[in-house]
Amino acid sequence: MKTKIAVANGDGIGPEIMAAVLRIFEANDVQLEYEFVEMGKSYFDAGHSTGMTAQAKETIETLGLLFKGPMETPKGKGVKSINVTARKVWNTYANQRDFRTLNGVETVFSKAGIPINLTIIRENIEDTYGGIEHLLTYDVAVGRRIITRPGSEQVIRYAFEMARRKGLKKLACGHKANIMKLTDGLFLEVFQEVAKEYPDIEASDIIVDDLCMKLVTRPQTFEAIVLTNLQGDIVSDLCAGLVGGLGFAPSANIGDNISIFEAVHGTAPDIAGKGIANPTALLLSGISMLRFLGFSKNAADIENALLYTLEQGVHTGDFGDKAIPSSNTNAFTDAIIAN
Amino acid sequence: MKTKIAVANGDGIGPEIMAAVLRIFEANDVQLEYEFVEMGKSYFDAGHSTGMTAQAKETIETLGLLFKGPMETPKGKGVKSINVTARKVWNTYANQRDFRTLNGVETVFSKAGIPINLTIIRENIEDTYGGIEHLLTYDVAVGRRIITRPGSEQVIRYAFEMARRKGLKKLACGHKANIMKLTDGLFLEVFQEVAKEYPDIEASDIIVDDLCMKLVTRPQTFEAIVLTNLQGDIVSDLCAGLVGGLGFAPSANIGDNISIFEAVHGTAPDIAGKGIANPTALLLSGISMLRFLGFSKNAADIENALLYTLEQGVHTGDFGDKAIPSSNTNAFTDAIIAN
Ligand SMILES: CC(C)[C@H](C(=O)O)[C@@H](O)C(=O)O
Ligand SMILES: CC(C)[C@H](C(=O)O)[C@@H](O)C(=O)O
Repeated sequence: MKTKIAVANGDGIGPEIMAAVLRIFEANDVQLEYEFVEMGKSYFDAGHSTGMTAQAKETIETLGLLFKGPMETPKGKGVKSINVTARKVWNTYANQRDFRTLNGVETVFSKAGIPINLTIIRENIEDTYGGIEHLLTYDVAVGRRIITRPGSEQVIRYAFEMARRKGLKKLACGHKANIMKLTDGLFLEVFQEVAKEYPDIEASDIIVDDLCMKLVTRPQTFEAIVLTNLQGDIVSDLCAGLVGGLGFAPSANIGDNISIFEAVHGTAPDIAGKGIANPTALLLSGISMLRFLGFSKNAADIENALLYTLEQGVHTGDFGDKAIPSSNTNAFTDAIIAN
Repeated sequence: MKTKIAVANGDGIGPEIMAAVLRIFEANDVQLEYEFVEMGKSYFDAGHSTGMTAQAKETIETLGLLFKGPMETPKGKGVKSINVTARKVWNTYANQRDFRTLNGVETVFSKAGIPINLTIIRENIEDTYGGIEHLLTYDVAVGRRIITRPGSEQVIRYAFEMARRKGLKKLACGHKANIMKLTDGLFLEVFQEVAKEYPDIEASDIIVDDLCMKLVTRPQTFEAIVLTNLQGDIVSDLCAGLVGGLGFAPSANIGDNISIFEAVHGTAPDIAGKGIANPTALLLSGISMLRFLGFSKNAADIENALLYTLEQGVHTGDFGDKAIPSSNTNAFTDAIIAN
């Protein structure tokens, strides 16, 4: 019997890269069945304030797992990102992004022979992402930043469990508790408490500015880092840059009942429909999803095929060796399938 | 007649590196006179809540300029960093840090042949640095983030003026106005308004996470970036990493009446008193200060001597070519003076 998951194509290049990834899944005989749901910018524009229809919401809640392409953030002051709303609606409290050096994707770090292999776990709900702001006058804007013990505990516990599951030796907590003594102080305190339950994982903490400095000088010294929402957002993108950009960064939003695997790069409206988009980030998210669902063999096969394809120098137009002509999405996908 | 400035040695390695810098100034016949003031961790411990004596405060206010070594942040929940307090007490609203590739200081970027030359201007007073936080319960911490129009305007105007003075072509505003729509939205709105008065400078804005990704992939595309306080703090350290670390990052806190030039790296208590500390960051801050005071000839001479010394491979123990034996602070300083 096939496992059923919800799939949302997303906006812009979303449908193309989703089709590419599902074609790779099919070629590897992945035992998944897909229920496509109505979610994205056009549904927001049609009046669905969460960016999805009631039916989509119900399907996702029944199936418990959503695989989604990138979605455009609607413009306007009172309006929230569809991605962020989805994280909140289903309390997917942990955002996990795994960054590793990919042969064939050249960066200053790969050129310097510095291998990168690190995981960022970001708290996904609290912090200034609550969007609680007001104008005291037109000249004074006030925002509120809320950090709670249960909210911190669930993501920190997830991070330690993830570290143990992956066989990691250490986990760092990034924070700015020297300035935000109560809010980040609470997050750090919870980290230190939970750490006691995981004596097998070396726990340390580091001030976020210092962390960013070290990430660009000695990224190989980190294995996994857990942070509050906004700091985690910033550090995640920094780390994506270390391995070549958001086009190579998978993202998983983990909750107790519902989890979302997504591409976090933009929707690239300028190249949408041209068949030249790079499906790597969505494929990497898909591979994480297969592991999460217990399809470890499929995950390993597809991951190896992807790594081998990149090593061969096959690439879409946005990266890779200029001396090798770039492939379109289909040819890139075919190469992965062939491998 | 000599210009008189206030000098605070700072904690840890502070006195050593300050002595080194002042020795270099003297050798270049800099027409400055120094009034040493009582400021630092020991004064905080002795009961001065701002980390300085009343006399020190008065001297600094009379002279209008403070040159300071690094200072230790006192521990404790209600207690604030002495550095941060100083910025607030005198409303030094713009923090400027200039980052450039230094020959002799090897980084992954210098190895890849990517030259870095960029300036970060950080708002220095507002944002969560107000330290307005409370515990709603022991499990819920709430912090407040305040962004004002006058506060934003003064630093943004400073950034445009700085860009013009330096002959830069462009200035970017880093922000997270897609999430913090009112607070960062206000900062961005002011940026766009002020930009209209500077048609000679190309103004653009970029979301801070995307900015961090681009800074680690294509830092050479930026000339100057202005940001709110905490995001500016994080981005400044990231940029320090790009050029080799905080040991190579000067820092100036500019206000209308008082300005502070400082080393922002730590106090390195482990090597304090050993005479092996690296005075480069404080010297770079000193060079900025000389320019600020109008001593452009001294600034250029000393800068050239420093750059030439680094190029020769002379270095303290914390950086440089391992094949060349490292120098202590004195020998490094002597080499700069000789050049
Ligand atoms: C699109 C944006 C709202 C989102 C965020 O800030 O979380 C993105 O940057 C991310 O990292 O997923
Ligand atoms: C020491 C610390 C309080 C300070 C800050 O956060 O501003 C430092 O990181 C800096 O950048 O000057």
